[in-house]
Amino acid sequence: MDSKQNNKITSRNTDFAKWYTDVVVAAKLASYSNTKGCIVFEPNGYALWESMRNILDQKFKETGHTNVYMPLLIPENLLRKEAELVKGFAPEVAWVTEGGDKKLEERLCIRPTSETVFSDYFASSISSYRDLPKLYNQWCSVLRWEKETRPFLRSREFLWQEGHTIHETKEEAEAETLNMLNIYNNFFHEYLAIPSIVGKKTEKEKFAGAEYTYTVEALMYNGVALQSGTSHYFGQKFSKAYGIKYTNRENKLDYPYQTSWGVSTRMIGALIMVHSDDYGLVLPPKIAPKKVVIIPITDTLEVLSLANDYLDKLTKEGISAYIDSSGKSPGFKFAEAEVNGIPVRIEIGKRDLDKGVVTLVRRDTREKREVFTDTDIVRDVKILLDDIQRDMYDRALRRREEMTYTCTDLEDFKDIINSHPGFIRAMWCGDAKCEEKIKEIRGCKSRCIPFNEEKISDKCIVCGKEAKNLVIWGIQY
Amino acid sequence: MDSKQNNKITSRNTDFAKWYTDVVVAAKLASYSNTKGCIVFEPNGYALWESMRNILDQKFKETGHTNVYMPLLIPENLLRKEAELVKGFAPEVAWVTEGGDKKLEERLCIRPTSETVFSDYFASSISSYRDLPKLYNQWCSVLRWEKETRPFLRSREFLWQEGHTIHETKEEAEAETLNMLNIYNNFFHEYLAIPSIVGKKTEKEKFAGAEYTYTVEALMYNGVALQSGTSHYFGQKFSKAYGIKYTNRENKLDYPYQTSWGVSTRMIGALIMVHSDDYGLVLPPKIAPKKVVIIPITDTLEVLSLANDYLDKLTKEGISAYIDSSGKSPGFKFAEAEVNGIPVRIEIGKRDLDKGVVTLVRRDTREKREVFTDTDIVRDVKILLDDIQRDMYDRALRRREEMTYTCTDLEDFKDIINSHPGFIRAMWCGDAKCEEKIKEIRGCKSRCIPFNEEKISDKCIVCGKEAKNLVIWGIQY
Repeated sequence: MDSKQNNKITSRNTDFAKWYTDVVVAAKLASYSNTKGCIVFEPNGYALWESMRNILDQKFKETGHTNVYMPLLIPENLLRKEAELVKGFAPEVAWVTEGGDKKLEERLCIRPTSETVFSDYFASSISSYRDLPKLYNQWCSVLRWEKETRPFLRSREFLWQEGHTIHETKEEAEAETLNMLNIYNNFFHEYLAIPSIVGKKTEKEKFAGAEYTYTVEALMYNGVALQSGTSHYFGQKFSKAYGIKYTNRENKLDYPYQTSWGVSTRMIGALIMVHSDDYGLVLPPKIAPKKVVIIPITDTLEVLSLANDYLDKLTKEGISAYIDSSGKSPGFKFAEAEVNGIPVRIEIGKRDLDKGVVTLVRRDTREKREVFTDTDIVRDVKILLDDIQRDMYDRALRRREEMTYTCTDLEDFKDIINSHPGFIRAMWCGDAKCEEKIKEIRGCKSRCIPFNEEKISDKCIVCGKEAKNLVIWGIQY
Repeated sequence: MDSKQNNKITSRNTDFAKWYTDVVVAAKLASYSNTKGCIVFEPNGYALWESMRNILDQKFKETGHTNVYMPLLIPENLLRKEAELVKGFAPEVAWVTEGGDKKLEERLCIRPTSETVFSDYFASSISSYRDLPKLYNQWCSVLRWEKETRPFLRSREFLWQEGHTIHETKEEAEAETLNMLNIYNNFFHEYLAIPSIVGKKTEKEKFAGAEYTYTVEALMYNGVALQSGTSHYFGQKFSKAYGIKYTNRENKLDYPYQTSWGVSTRMIGALIMVHSDDYGLVLPPKIAPKKVVIIPITDTLEVLSLANDYLDKLTKEGISAYIDSSGKSPGFKFAEAEVNGIPVRIEIGKRDLDKGVVTLVRRDTREKREVFTDTDIVRDVKILLDDIQRDMYDRALRRREEMTYTCTDLEDFKDIINSHPGFIRAMWCGDAKCEEKIKEIRGCKSRCIPFNEEKISDKCIVCGKEAKNLVIWGIQY
């Protein structure tokens, strides 16, 4: 542990924003850098990203995607080919204007997203239906010139993956858009223990340049919504703007259909804000880079040899574990394991050993339990890890359900947002003006039109005219 | 296979430079982009990089290193703190001068390398000997404004890893510098099947800002040398320039010692230029993303079922294999497997099956061998992969030895470089002026002062004065 570390964490219920940054710093996930608006991903934060990346990368590959890497810099003329995209991103890009001690003839922007370069590549590499589909993904960093930044949630530079695919038919591209949304949604449920809601963005909230956008929306502990992943269907917009033509099966020139989809290090922010507490980080076991910490309370031979025995057994079973053998006090080690969110802690003390027991502590509830030393430690730990994973999801789901309101009256809507925000389910006529009206309530926005719509009223909550969709609304990060 | 592909590869002995780019394109490793000097890493090229990254990442982690991620952009004042580094890199960086539609008050450069940001981070995060050592690594892309570019060998943007470590003592930092060099060297031998030479760079050739630089040097098929990895010892240069101070064990303020080390996608270029041939890529099995291709020559049930049986067996044993079930002709499939450098090809034909045999083809020598269908295919393939790996190394070593010359006379030296370049072992007095004289011979440079020096003469090959070191010389990429 660094000598500079200070584990003092503001209470989550006192000041949520301060609590959040305290956890980020105390758990050594990230620190501020001297590049304005950019953070340093410290070992614990980066390991968490690696853990997410490894799981998702496997899921992408299992579904036929391959990784590629496109240039970081995009010539201005290339960026400008798709009008909506450029309108959406041009105000927030960084421009390279000098290189090798010379002023450049054309500005190059640092990629805020790579639809343009992928489309340009597709235009030069695709000519026949035999070249389709291409199912590509890229792990990289992107840059957006944000004014207000917060670690992981909104940073000028962040890490992400961006999938870019191109298909012969509309149907195939639409199926891909939905499949990738489902992969994200499953990842949130199964690994991050976050009960996400999926649906379609409204026209106003969709990605610049997309025909439509699917989104994964999650609700944080404080009732604020976080857009946590998106999957876009482009139709032929980019293929027309970038001149991607191919000879189809009827031997005619045609434009293919495209998609893109991405999740980012913002998921680390979601993990913190859904699960963590006043003692620091709480990580779902399936995503925790280190799942078990073994803490010898004394330095006696018997204690250390049992610790090593446990480490061996756990490691052999593929459960990532380590012994905290630093010279610090047991209390200090316990606190450190807690602040870092290690799901299970095994405490081995001499006095306990004399009684034939060791203590298992689960990080999420901080419950302690004694188990006999001759127990099957691997089995016990596995059961505990499964319990933690399931319980964390269940608790998060319960909390989300408690904070999800159904509204048919605008005054009720305002009351909820002003007193105890959360997700609000309310009917909408489809008019952007009504969305604007809602936005006047503390910036509340439509999160999505969920897939399994259920009519709760016939009238738009704003104008009272005929309702078209059930929409989930919420204040956002 | 893309319909646009054209597998015509210029002969290696006719035009080596053209052959190289032909192989890059034909094996679909990379293609040119519309961002000048930057390439697109296509699926095959990126998979090769992933393969290298996965192996090295594990070696780094096994030796106690953890991954982090630092900002892409470096404020100009931060870059300028270490005078030698800035002199070395300032002429070849790209500058961001506009962001979010505004001109910036201070230019930001895109990292050409990250000593500056790591040092700045260390300055703010280290205060006691208890914080040391820090053993960090970063996988990222970097940018250098090169004028002449060639795929993988010299590109404005390239992918690499940069390790940055900081230590209490000189001894520890120097040991780290050497350890990482050894990890690289072993990786070249064991995985890339490239017999590298390691040693110290001369003062003139060392990294800007380093006290000294170790290097991994490899010799390409055409006798040209490629600097393939470097490990730098910085002493206290950066800690003094960036004000990294810590309280040592005597409770006094002191400056720590630093190192950095890196290898890049240039290794892909080395792989091509050492091993590949006129039929395309040749990959050492240990680094090949796909080790075996199974090609059914007919579509009969018996053939396809054996193909699937083999695939199952190989996959279960962790040998990455696939069936080429495209509708193309067998000859086309064979050629594609060759151009892509798949180490082992299994051909299954109906007529062969009637005889109870299948054909194994090794890519490196293109030798074919029939094996009985009831053979243990996994064992046979494993032996063959091991043979290929070993033989590729042996051949590369033999070639390097044939192209390594020992010289004591400058005229001989010139003759060799002018007629059939390679590594030249020659004595040197240590004077940079003599190095300059050598450089006049087709740009020939000192590659390194190898560790196990062997005096071959008492005199400097240039000035005839007392020789200090044996130096390996060569023309470089």
